[in-house]
Amino acid sequence: MSNRQLSGHAIVLTMFILGICAVAPAQRQRSVVSPEVGADRKITFRLRAPEAQKVLLTANFLSESQPLTKDAEGLWAVTVGPLAPEIYEYNFVVDGLSIPDPVNPDVKVWRRVSRSMVLVPGDEPTFFEVQPVPHGTVHIHAYHSQSLDVTRGLYVYTPPGYETETLRRYPVLYLLHGSGDTERTWTVVGRANVILDNAIAQHQAEPMIVVMPYGHIPTGDADRSRARRHAAFATDLIEDVMPYVRRHYRIRSGPEHTAVTGLSMGGAQALRLGLGHPELFGWLGAFSSAVPGAEELDDLLAEPESLNAQLKLLWIGCGKRDFLFEANQRLLAELEAKDIEHVAHLTEGTHEWRVWRRYLNEILPLLFKTNH
Amino acid sequence: MSNRQLSGHAIVLTMFILGICAVAPAQRQRSVVSPEVGADRKITFRLRAPEAQKVLLTANFLSESQPLTKDAEGLWAVTVGPLAPEIYEYNFVVDGLSIPDPVNPDVKVWRRVSRSMVLVPGDEPTFFEVQPVPHGTVHIHAYHSQSLDVTRGLYVYTPPGYETETLRRYPVLYLLHGSGDTERTWTVVGRANVILDNAIAQHQAEPMIVVMPYGHIPTGDADRSRARRHAAFATDLIEDVMPYVRRHYRIRSGPEHTAVTGLSMGGAQALRLGLGHPELFGWLGAFSSAVPGAEELDDLLAEPESLNAQLKLLWIGCGKRDFLFEANQRLLAELEAKDIEHVAHLTEGTHEWRVWRRYLNEILPLLFKTNH
Repeated sequence: MSNRQLSGHAIVLTMFILGICAVAPAQRQRSVVSPEVGADRKITFRLRAPEAQKVLLTANFLSESQPLTKDAEGLWAVTVGPLAPEIYEYNFVVDGLSIPDPVNPDVKVWRRVSRSMVLVPGDEPTFFEVQPVPHGTVHIHAYHSQSLDVTRGLYVYTPPGYETETLRRYPVLYLLHGSGDTERTWTVVGRANVILDNAIAQHQAEPMIVVMPYGHIPTGDADRSRARRHAAFATDLIEDVMPYVRRHYRIRSGPEHTAVTGLSMGGAQALRLGLGHPELFGWLGAFSSAVPGAEELDDLLAEPESLNAQLKLLWIGCGKRDFLFEANQRLLAELEAKDIEHVAHLTEGTHEWRVWRRYLNEILPLLFKTNH
Repeated sequence: MSNRQLSGHAIVLTMFILGICAVAPAQRQRSVVSPEVGADRKITFRLRAPEAQKVLLTANFLSESQPLTKDAEGLWAVTVGPLAPEIYEYNFVVDGLSIPDPVNPDVKVWRRVSRSMVLVPGDEPTFFEVQPVPHGTVHIHAYHSQSLDVTRGLYVYTPPGYETETLRRYPVLYLLHGSGDTERTWTVVGRANVILDNAIAQHQAEPMIVVMPYGHIPTGDADRSRARRHAAFATDLIEDVMPYVRRHYRIRSGPEHTAVTGLSMGGAQALRLGLGHPELFGWLGAFSSAVPGAEELDDLLAEPESLNAQLKLLWIGCGKRDFLFEANQRLLAELEAKDIEHVAHLTEGTHEWRVWRRYLNEILPLLFKTNH
């Protein structure tokens, strides 16, 4: 087995697929293997549900759901593909009820119905696959937010060599998640750590620290307006998270060494932070971003010359079939109208992780370049 | 909201329960809230499944499954309890198909059918709840195992103050998982980091580094005998994991500063490591452990006086309704017969995490005591 198929994340899936575990033989025969990815890039999905009348497969690689067929033992199955190398998401629909694959531990947890994930590897490893390169470390912190009066989770990626090159300081990327996500999602689903490892190994990215905070505001504040919730998040990030990171990590300070990017809700947070505080964040990226309303946007873009002088990068990415595409076109039109320098990165795709993993990989080479 | 309800782990659940996420109001009304833990410690479980004929709740707090009832909109629900403070596990059984709660992101992933988890808090916070005390950090590594020729995941807990007290060195506990688990399970399900934070804050545990490796052996070796798989794991731990930990962390070396404990399969691994290498591990714990066969055990216990001289702790814990209880009684009888000093910790309970969280909490005060 090649190394690149294994990671903290993929190990779980691989372990499952290959049935490595030390179980009694009788149990092993009865366990259902799903999903099974063949060398030909076809995937077989299986579900044991003897009493079900109808089982469908829904997935982000299917335009319409596919029926599974049942054998005499009540094991439902369907084989699809071959598929291009990618991390796909899917659910089963059992007599109308959408569920994650109950035997696949690689689950994308979500507020309503969690989805299962499956990685189809490429002939050459893709940018989100674990490769035999030096690996950074992901740190899980619990920090006390004074501004929100609550203890919150925080994920931090340090690049390979961080533990041993103890005099070196690093630039920092603040990477923000979407409304259905948590501080875990950029690593568990987005594979940010794997993407960084690979980009750094190929000299496509500066070695950097990536800070992935938790972006939601505690209950009680749920009735706040969107703008006030964003302001509470910005205060937590600037007054609690950034000082915590300074205390715990060897970072380079100043806007030329600090970037903020986010997706969807996190994109709007990044826009507010970067446009509102160019003295803190010199590099700004918004992926499939929610866009502040016209009045707030006018405020944020009120000083175009100052923004042009201070921001080293303003990068707007959106898929053409994203439900936020029109909002992003309005944002881009405003930037054009005000002569604010930016990069418009309009691509194929909808509002989903296949797009966001690529955006992260594509923005990394642009960050922290000294001769911009 | 009190701090102690929030952690990297509990945040996900809490966020979900409280419906914090920024969703459109129309969507929010339609989302199903499950599980909902009341102030009275009753829990309501809900599932939207209009086409289902029969939905049951199975859980480790129920002796038999409980039916849910359906309302006119196809929303099934049942309220149970009040329950004692604990982290419980449950599934829904929908027309015979066992599934995790599709809207609860707190999932215990598992080889066959994943289970959902729900925390019922106590009036006073229990030892596994996040409390307003200093928090350590969990580090996620990917390391290359030379002995297994594969890249594997590794979780490492460092105690509060590790990042700032940069001259201090710490003892190390190697904490091994069971056969259905991965390197994540001791933190995500077992809450080892939370238990350590609380025990250290109460001066019930020495500040220590906890190393949680991945305990399975890659495929291809699946046909090896159990003893050979254990030997391959021991080689990986001693020749790859331990040097990696020495390079990356400020540890204290030597058996008086090194402990190994594990549960089930990991208990057998710990017994083989600790009894086989008392020159490396001075403190040994086996939780609900699988027990090596008679011949191998004879080898491991061949030099009682040497073990008594070298081991500072040999701690055997098992629940009386555990399917491995008889095997552990045989092990204890052998230790008695050979006059090998040990602690027999026989408790209520079966083969499950409610027991193992407690065992970890109970063994911590015994580790690394200098005047043993």
